[in-house]
Amino acid sequence: MTGRYDFASDNTAPIAPEALDALVHANIGFAPAYGADATSSRSADQVRAFLDADAEVRFVASGTAANAIALTLLCAPFQAVAAHEHAHVCTDEAGAPGFFGQGLGLIALPGAAGRVSPAALAQVLAAHRMSHRQSVAALSLTNATEYGAVYSRAQIAELARLAKDAGCAVHLDGARLANAVAAGFDPKSIAGLGVDVLVLGGAKAGASPAEALVILDKALAPNLDVRLKQAGQLASKGRFHAAPLLGLLESGAFVERAAHANAMARRLAAASPFPVRHPVEANAVFLEIDDVALAGLHARGWFVYRFLDASVRFMCSWATTPDAVDELGEVLQGLH
Amino acid sequence: MTGRYDFASDNTAPIAPEALDALVHANIGFAPAYGADATSSRSADQVRAFLDADAEVRFVASGTAANAIALTLLCAPFQAVAAHEHAHVCTDEAGAPGFFGQGLGLIALPGAAGRVSPAALAQVLAAHRMSHRQSVAALSLTNATEYGAVYSRAQIAELARLAKDAGCAVHLDGARLANAVAAGFDPKSIAGLGVDVLVLGGAKAGASPAEALVILDKALAPNLDVRLKQAGQLASKGRFHAAPLLGLLESGAFVERAAHANAMARRLAAASPFPVRHPVEANAVFLEIDDVALAGLHARGWFVYRFLDASVRFMCSWATTPDAVDELGEVLQGLH
Amino acid sequence: MTGRYDFASDNTAPIAPEALDALVHANIGFAPAYGADATSSRSADQVRAFLDADAEVRFVASGTAANAIALTLLCAPFQAVAAHEHAHVCTDEAGAPGFFGQGLGLIALPGAAGRVSPAALAQVLAAHRMSHRQSVAALSLTNATEYGAVYSRAQIAELARLAKDAGCAVHLDGARLANAVAAGFDPKSIAGLGVDVLVLGGAKAGASPAEALVILDKALAPNLDVRLKQAGQLASKGRFHAAPLLGLLESGAFVERAAHANAMARRLAAASPFPVRHPVEANAVFLEIDDVALAGLHARGWFVYRFLDASVRFMCSWATTPDAVDELGEVLQGLH
Amino acid sequence: MTGRYDFASDNTAPIAPEALDALVHANIGFAPAYGADATSSRSADQVRAFLDADAEVRFVASGTAANAIALTLLCAPFQAVAAHEHAHVCTDEAGAPGFFGQGLGLIALPGAAGRVSPAALAQVLAAHRMSHRQSVAALSLTNATEYGAVYSRAQIAELARLAKDAGCAVHLDGARLANAVAAGFDPKSIAGLGVDVLVLGGAKAGASPAEALVILDKALAPNLDVRLKQAGQLASKGRFHAAPLLGLLESGAFVERAAHANAMARRLAAASPFPVRHPVEANAVFLEIDDVALAGLHARGWFVYRFLDASVRFMCSWATTPDAVDELGEVLQGLH
Repeated sequence: MTGRYDFASDNTAPIAPEALDALVHANIGFAPAYGADATSSRSADQVRAFLDADAEVRFVASGTAANAIALTLLCAPFQAVAAHEHAHVCTDEAGAPGFFGQGLGLIALPGAAGRVSPAALAQVLAAHRMSHRQSVAALSLTNATEYGAVYSRAQIAELARLAKDAGCAVHLDGARLANAVAAGFDPKSIAGLGVDVLVLGGAKAGASPAEALVILDKALAPNLDVRLKQAGQLASKGRFHAAPLLGLLESGAFVERAAHANAMARRLAAASPFPVRHPVEANAVFLEIDDVALAGLHARGWFVYRFLDASVRFMCSWATTPDAVDELGEVLQGLH
Repeated sequence: MTGRYDFASDNTAPIAPEALDALVHANIGFAPAYGADATSSRSADQVRAFLDADAEVRFVASGTAANAIALTLLCAPFQAVAAHEHAHVCTDEAGAPGFFGQGLGLIALPGAAGRVSPAALAQVLAAHRMSHRQSVAALSLTNATEYGAVYSRAQIAELARLAKDAGCAVHLDGARLANAVAAGFDPKSIAGLGVDVLVLGGAKAGASPAEALVILDKALAPNLDVRLKQAGQLASKGRFHAAPLLGLLESGAFVERAAHANAMARRLAAASPFPVRHPVEANAVFLEIDDVALAGLHARGWFVYRFLDASVRFMCSWATTPDAVDELGEVLQGLH
Repeated sequence: MTGRYDFASDNTAPIAPEALDALVHANIGFAPAYGADATSSRSADQVRAFLDADAEVRFVASGTAANAIALTLLCAPFQAVAAHEHAHVCTDEAGAPGFFGQGLGLIALPGAAGRVSPAALAQVLAAHRMSHRQSVAALSLTNATEYGAVYSRAQIAELARLAKDAGCAVHLDGARLANAVAAGFDPKSIAGLGVDVLVLGGAKAGASPAEALVILDKALAPNLDVRLKQAGQLASKGRFHAAPLLGLLESGAFVERAAHANAMARRLAAASPFPVRHPVEANAVFLEIDDVALAGLHARGWFVYRFLDASVRFMCSWATTPDAVDELGEVLQGLH
Repeated sequence: MTGRYDFASDNTAPIAPEALDALVHANIGFAPAYGADATSSRSADQVRAFLDADAEVRFVASGTAANAIALTLLCAPFQAVAAHEHAHVCTDEAGAPGFFGQGLGLIALPGAAGRVSPAALAQVLAAHRMSHRQSVAALSLTNATEYGAVYSRAQIAELARLAKDAGCAVHLDGARLANAVAAGFDPKSIAGLGVDVLVLGGAKAGASPAEALVILDKALAPNLDVRLKQAGQLASKGRFHAAPLLGLLESGAFVERAAHANAMARRLAAASPFPVRHPVEANAVFLEIDDVALAGLHARGWFVYRFLDASVRFMCSWATTPDAVDELGEVLQGLH
C-alpha cells in the first residue's frame, strides 16, 4: 500500500495539462530574461483581462513570498496588518511577513469559517492608539478562506470599506481565488472593491510553482523589479513562472478545474459520516473526526491533518477523482 | 528581424530536454509537499553523488535567494562576507545578502578574471580589527567566475585555507559549476576544500528555475525547512524544483551540455576579430568592442551588454548552436 | 493649574539623587569610550554582586532595545517568543522584537495580573508543530509585571522549567525588577532559575535613561559590543549610561527607593474609593474607573490612562510623595 | 602613570558644564514622557533657531542610530547611499545602515581629507543602471569630515546639487557640526543647501550621550515617534536627552567650546615634529608617525590610534587643555 496524498493538500496534485502544455510551448528558443519575454507579457495580459483591471503583474515562485512582499508595499515595519487569526500569513508562512517586512506586525482577528468578523475588524480599527502598539495599516483577506468558505462581493466590500475609511490598504490572498471564482465570486469586482494588491494563486490551481503578484494600485509599484530581485523573487528564466498561468487562464481551465475541485469537495462532504465543520463552498472539507478514527485513516495510508480549529482537513484539487472521493467515503464510513 | 538573445545570457536559453523530461516524468499522481516527495529525495541523492559528499540538499527557485540564505548561515548581521568585487552577490543581486542577512556587509576584493586575489584576501583578513567595521566572517567564491575563468582546485584550496585559518567559513556560488566541471574542475573535491555551503546552479545549466542549496557543514542546517519557508524559498510543489536537476544529473547532461556551452565559447573567441579580454575557460567570452561596433550589433538585433569591466559579454549555453556562433562571428567581422 | 504627571508613569519622575550624584561623580577627566572605562566596569561589578552571578553586563540607553536585542540572542527570525499578552515586548515596543529580530514572532499568553499562566504556556509548548508556524524558542517574563504583580521565585521556577524542558531559553524583563525585589523577590535567585538574559531596569528605578543588559549565559555573548554597536546601543560616552545604576546599586537606593514606590502604591490603593483590579504588590495601582470619573480626573489635570485591560493605571515612583497620594485620593473620593 | 585618553577621541571627554547644568536643571518634578515635555520642546526650538529652519527635531541617545534611521528615511532596502569611503556610516558603525535599513547598500566614494570628490560622485550617479545593482538614492556627507576638514558652503552646494539633479536625497552627518561651525561653516545655510535630514551631534560637542535627529524635509517624518520607538531610540525620560543640547545651544557653548577644540588642534599641529597629513580645519590632527614612535607614545600611556589612512589621529575636544597639548608636543618631540 502506498501513501495516499490526494486529500492532504491541494498542492500535492500534479501540474494540470493546460499549465504543462503552456510551459512546454514556452520552451522554444531564446527569450529575454527577468520577465521581459513575450510569454510573461501575454500572461500578464491574461491576468489583467481576467480581473478586468489595469495592474502591474509579476510572476513569482512562492505564494508566501508574494504575500509577504505585497504586505511590505502596504505597511511599514512599525505598523501592522490585520488578518484572520488562521490566515496563511498568520499561521503558515513561518513569519514571512515580519521577515520581509522588517518586523511588521500581524493582528489576528476572529471570524467564522476563516472570514474576518467585521465587528472584530471595526473594533481593532477604532482602538485608541494608546501607548506604542503597532497600529493597523493594512487588512489582509483570503478568498477562498483557509476553511473553504467563499467571501461574497458584499462581504469583502464591507470589510474593505471599514479598512479604507480608517486609512488602511487592502491585500487579497488569492491562493485559492480560482476556487472562489468557481463558486461565484466575480474576479472583475476585485479592483472596484478597493483591493490594492492581489496574489493570484497558480500552484493550487494546477500550475507548477508560480503565483501572480498583481499590483492594482500602480503607484505602489516603482522599482518593483529590483525590489523583487533583492527579495529573491525575480526569476531569470521568468517565462517558466508565467507560462503555467497563461495556459490556465487562456484555456479557461483556471476556473473550470477549480469548479471540479469544488464539486469533489461537495461530493466528499455528502459522503462523510462525520460532521462537517464549515460550509463547503470551495475545495476544502473539514470533518469532526476523533483521534481513533484519524489514526485509522493514517493506518490505511490516507495522509490528512488535524487543522488549527481541531477538525481534520480534506483538500480537493483539479486532480481529485470521483473514484478517490468514493473510496475515501467508504473508508470514513468504516471508521465511523 | 526578431531579437537575438542567444548570447545575452545563459539564462535566455530554454529548458534542456533532460530537465524537461524529468519534470514531465515527475508530474504523475499526488506527492507529498514541501520537498518530502520521492523526486526531491532522489534528486538530493544525485547531488550528493555528484559531489561525493554528505550534505543537506534543498531545491529552491532562485540563485539570488540561495546565495543570500547561504551567506546568512555563515555570517551574522554585524559581520561581513569577502567576495570578488564583481561577484554576483556584490553586483547583481540588488543587495539580497544584506536583505536576507539583516545588513550583513560585503567586502569587495580585486582579482583578475573574476578570481579573488589571494594577496588581497590575506590583507583583508589580516587587517587590524580597529574601530567598528564589520569584520570578515565568510569568503564567497564563484566557480566558474563572472568573467568565465575557472578556479583550479589548488586556487580554491589556497583561498579557502586563508579563510579557514582566519576562522572564516566558505561559500561557493556554483551558478555555473557545471561549466567549471566541464572545464576540468572536480566536483568531488569541493567538500574536502572546506566549502561549507554550495549553491549548485540549475537554471544556467539547462533547468527551469531551480538551484540546489547544498549545506556541506550539516551543523549549519537545523530548522532549515522553516528557515527557507520564512524566506519564501520552500516550494509547496517541491518536486518541480527538484526534477530538472535530477534529470540533468542522472543523465550526465549537466556536465555534457556545459561542455558544449564551453566549446561554443571557444569557437566564438576564435571567430572574434575583437580582442578577447579574459581567458575563455568556461562559457563566457568578453570582447573589447568599441561603442560604434556595439551599436552596430544592437542595430542588427543581437542583444549583448557592456559589463562591469567595460568589455562586452557574450554568454554561450547548452542551446547555443555552432551556426549561431558562426553567424555572430561574421557579424563581428563585418563590424570590425 | 499645571498638569500632574505624578501617576502617569514611573518614567515621568526625575533622576534620583543617588543616580545623579554618580553621574556627576563620573564626569571627571577623560575616560576610554565604548564601555571600557572604570565607571562601566564598577557598575557591571555592582550588577553582578546584586545578582550574585557571573554575567556579561552592558549599559544601554533603551529598555525597548535591550529587550529586543536580548530576544534576538535567544530566538531566530523563524522562531517565536512566548510572552504575556500584555507584556511590554508585545504591546508597548512598537514591534521592536520583530524589527531587531528580523521578523521573530511573538506568541501572546494569557494570565492573571500580567503573570503568564503555566497551563497556557504548557499548551503552547506542547502544541504539535504542524504546518509552518513559528515555533517557540524563548519565554519572556516580566517581574514586576505590567499589572504590578510580583512573581514569586517558585512561580518563575515553574514557568522557566516548562520552557527549559521544551528546549527554550528564558528572558526576564526587569524594567521594574527593583520593585519586585523590594516586594521580596530575591535577585540572587535569578541565575539559578534559568534566566539566560536579564534586562535590569534603570530608568524606572530612578536612573537617567539607562538599563543594564545582563547576559547570564555568557556563551550567548561573543561579539557583543559590535552587535550592540550595529544596533545603535553602544554609547561612545558609555560611562554616563553606567554611572546612574552604579549610584543606585552601590548606595542601596535601587531597592530602598523602589520600596518607597511600592508603599505609595499601597497607600493609594487604600485611599481609593474605586475597586482595585489587580493585587498591589509593586508600584502600580489599577482602578476600575468609569469614563465620567476619568474625564473628571483629566479635567483636574491628572494625567492617567486607561490600560489594556480597561482599568486605569496609576504608577508610583521613587519621587511620589505621600502628599500627592493623599491629594489624589481626595480627588478620587470626590469623583466617586 | 595612568592612561591618557585626552587625544584618543573627542568622546573621551566629560560632559561640558553647560550641558550638565541643563541636565540638572531639567531634573525637577514630573514631566511627560517620550519627548512631550517642556525641555524637549525648548531644545527643539533651539535647534531650529540655530539652523534658522523649520524641522522635526528628536533627541536620541546614539549618533550611529540617528544616522542609520536618517538613511532609512531616504533610501529603500534595494537602493544605496553614496558616502565617503571613510565616512563613519561606512567604516565605524558596524553596518548599522544596513541593519536599520534592511540591507540598504553603501557606495564608497574617494576624496581628499574625507570630503567626497564631486567627480567621483558624478560618475556614480551617471553610471548606467545596468544589471541589478543597488542604485543610489541618497548622498551622505559629514561636516566636519572624519579627517578634520570642513566643507565650505559652496562645496556642499556642489555635491548636493549633483545629488538632487539625479533625484537623490541628502543626509548630513553633523557629529562634529559644532566644529565645522566654529570653523566658519554657516549652520543657517544647511536647509537651503538641500539637506533633507541632519544629525546634529551632541556627544562630541560636550553633551552626555545625546544627538538631535533633524528632519528638514518634514514630509519624511510621519509616524516618526513610533518609528523611533521600534528602533529603540525613543527615550521614556526624553528630557534628559534634550537637556544637554539645550544647555549648549542656549548658552552659545556649542560653538564656543568647539572653537576651543579647534584651536587646540591647531596648537597641536604647530607643535608636532611629525608631518601633518590633512588640513587642520576642525578639531582633529592626523600625524604621519612611524610604528616605533607610536609604540613609544603607547608606552608613555598616550592612547591614540592609527586610522584608516594609516596616519595617527589625535582628537581635541572642549576639555583639551593647552597644557596637555604642550605636554604631548614635548613627548612627540622626544619620539621624533
